[in-house]
Amino acid sequence: MRPPPLERWDWLEAPDGLELVPEGGVTTPAGFRAAGAACGLKPSGALDLGVLICDEPGASALVDTTSALPAAAIRRNREVRADGFRGVVVNAGTANAATGSPGVEDARRMAELVASHASARPDEIAVCSTGTIGDRLDMAKVGAGIAEAAAGVAVGGGTDFASAIRTTDRWRKSAAFRVGETSLGVAAKGAGMIRPGMATMLAFVTIDAALAADDLAAMTRRAAEGSFNRISVDGQMSPSDTLIVLTSAAGEVVTGERVERIADALRCACRWAAIQMVKDGEGAEHAVRVRVSGATSVEEADAVARAVGDSPLVKTAIFGRDPNWGRVEQAVGQALAGRGGPVADLAVRLDGVDVASVEAAAVMERAEYELAVELGRGGSSAELFVSDLTHAYVTLNAEYHT
Amino acid sequence: MRPPPLERWDWLEAPDGLELVPEGGVTTPAGFRAAGAACGLKPSGALDLGVLICDEPGASALVDTTSALPAAAIRRNREVRADGFRGVVVNAGTANAATGSPGVEDARRMAELVASHASARPDEIAVCSTGTIGDRLDMAKVGAGIAEAAAGVAVGGGTDFASAIRTTDRWRKSAAFRVGETSLGVAAKGAGMIRPGMATMLAFVTIDAALAADDLAAMTRRAAEGSFNRISVDGQMSPSDTLIVLTSAAGEVVTGERVERIADALRCACRWAAIQMVKDGEGAEHAVRVRVSGATSVEEADAVARAVGDSPLVKTAIFGRDPNWGRVEQAVGQALAGRGGPVADLAVRLDGVDVASVEAAAVMERAEYELAVELGRGGSSAELFVSDLTHAYVTLNAEYHT
Repeated sequence: MRPPPLERWDWLEAPDGLELVPEGGVTTPAGFRAAGAACGLKPSGALDLGVLICDEPGASALVDTTSALPAAAIRRNREVRADGFRGVVVNAGTANAATGSPGVEDARRMAELVASHASARPDEIAVCSTGTIGDRLDMAKVGAGIAEAAAGVAVGGGTDFASAIRTTDRWRKSAAFRVGETSLGVAAKGAGMIRPGMATMLAFVTIDAALAADDLAAMTRRAAEGSFNRISVDGQMSPSDTLIVLTSAAGEVVTGERVERIADALRCACRWAAIQMVKDGEGAEHAVRVRVSGATSVEEADAVARAVGDSPLVKTAIFGRDPNWGRVEQAVGQALAGRGGPVADLAVRLDGVDVASVEAAAVMERAEYELAVELGRGGSSAELFVSDLTHAYVTLNAEYHT
Repeated sequence: MRPPPLERWDWLEAPDGLELVPEGGVTTPAGFRAAGAACGLKPSGALDLGVLICDEPGASALVDTTSALPAAAIRRNREVRADGFRGVVVNAGTANAATGSPGVEDARRMAELVASHASARPDEIAVCSTGTIGDRLDMAKVGAGIAEAAAGVAVGGGTDFASAIRTTDRWRKSAAFRVGETSLGVAAKGAGMIRPGMATMLAFVTIDAALAADDLAAMTRRAAEGSFNRISVDGQMSPSDTLIVLTSAAGEVVTGERVERIADALRCACRWAAIQMVKDGEGAEHAVRVRVSGATSVEEADAVARAVGDSPLVKTAIFGRDPNWGRVEQAVGQALAGRGGPVADLAVRLDGVDVASVEAAAVMERAEYELAVELGRGGSSAELFVSDLTHAYVTLNAEYHT
């Protein structure tokens, strides 16, 4: 299933001149090949193993989870250089998390298998796993899947790769963007449904421009901060969260203003994937951009945005199309507890409409809207994209065994 | 409806010699009278206004919310001495929160009305309101209710008082305890928006012993910390949280060891009310005591307990009777993010049973059980009583405007 169109294109904060490439993906940028295979980790028989390779690799960058109990693939990737990846192998169905040292050994073996098929070194292959926590990988299946996918990587394989990394995502998250001579492709997965123990977030971006490793690392951190770090489906950090950016070394190293343009495009591509994750959050019916302004610091604005966006009372009100500003005020009061300083009367607006007005209920019927909170005590602001708390969320997470 | 019996009496940590008084309540201690009236704030016509008065008042103590946006009654009570209350007026149906200065004026008026009927001074009457946020009180109804309740206060009125302060509570929370010559009565309300930031939703304790104001203030703070500050239904702090303890001045001022015994009994009475709030949390089917041990500090143990107990993934697993230790591990990993230090393999036990064993599912059928997490990195511990996240919670909060 294709990703549904984003109604609020302005949420991407796209730089001037950025174009969406219809049906694009991680193999849209020149020099990248990919494939997906079905190796039996998903009981449905769907694609569950993906390989992505760059033919003439440039620098890479990686941002991963801050969880104190990271999954095996995270631990393995930290053993090698984050700027030296030329390819990625991803399996869905089993997260290889909470599997101890044997799990890390399995992750290392995945990289070795890809390397042997792709004429690469193991330390050039990043490894990602998503699925159930606590189970060991079936390495016989994984090995067969890697052999098939590595042999089948093709310029048109981006769509299969994006399908293979899904767990319970309703649709694949695949897109490409063009800015000037440069293309950026993205594939991502969001909060799963059938295996709700692990709302693992994975995202991969490809760029067909040679970038200095330092430039790429800086723009990747900035893009992650402005996208994946600004979303929340249920406030629950995964032990496997990973963003990997691969670049092709074709052409001369990009410098000057073009670096900025690519950085802006990378941030935009990541925002597209992040917002798709919220729209496809477990049981979600709404994607809401919470915008907090008038805070005394960015940290305070962020705390208020998370208090509002993660509040089960606010999230059920979004589900119920109930313009319940009392619950927003309650969450703000909690977030500001102990912070001191004046608290003025709040202004709460839904797509610019006062939440207490009769028009507010109509805004809440929209699939995407903005919930703005003005604190009136400073000049700092923050945003957070969130989904709602629905019966489908409870059903998915209570009734399915993990 | 009577409160259901607590299966886990040991959770109260009751002092030796403490007895439960059958059918007891806030008028069980000598010298207290109370009543409930129906003044029309609840559309159902149920009791919605309560008055509690002490005939020969001793010291009082009050602990209230740390919310940065406290409700009108909180603001009014802070205008007068916390150790000088002899009575309380409470309405349910309208929280008188986010109502600005006019709301505070309404709260002052409530105290004046009770004082005029009860031959007291307004500053001797504490005011509490609970219900929908953002609406002004209907003072004509409130005035009529106060007149009726103040005229009707009686030694047998504790049950009606406890019924009148309910909002979405399924049952009234009313009990009394006896330790030596002293009786303690308690009435409380809970249900939703329960994550007290220093006190509870609303709770009132009466004691028929003369206590020094300093002793009472100290034991009240300790009791609140060991009870209402250790529960969470949905992680959402209310702007109205209030605990008020009233004592009768009958007899000589208590000193020495008897103060300690009463303090222990007060803590126990508060734990009883707090655990009843969790058992009657919105939509709750389970009350779970999360016990975290082996942390490097109490603050860290508390952070882990809240991460586990407030996780929607853990709470839906409790609802679904699914011994999903991967979700507990995920929450621990999130709580310890950035804290450094070694993280050993976690031990997660349900009423002493390893969560990975086949017996774990049977424990999860119990209405009350303990979820213990051993971190193995220090000597500090914390507890948190939590409810589960159910379809009934979503229905209540999506379909009803609170």
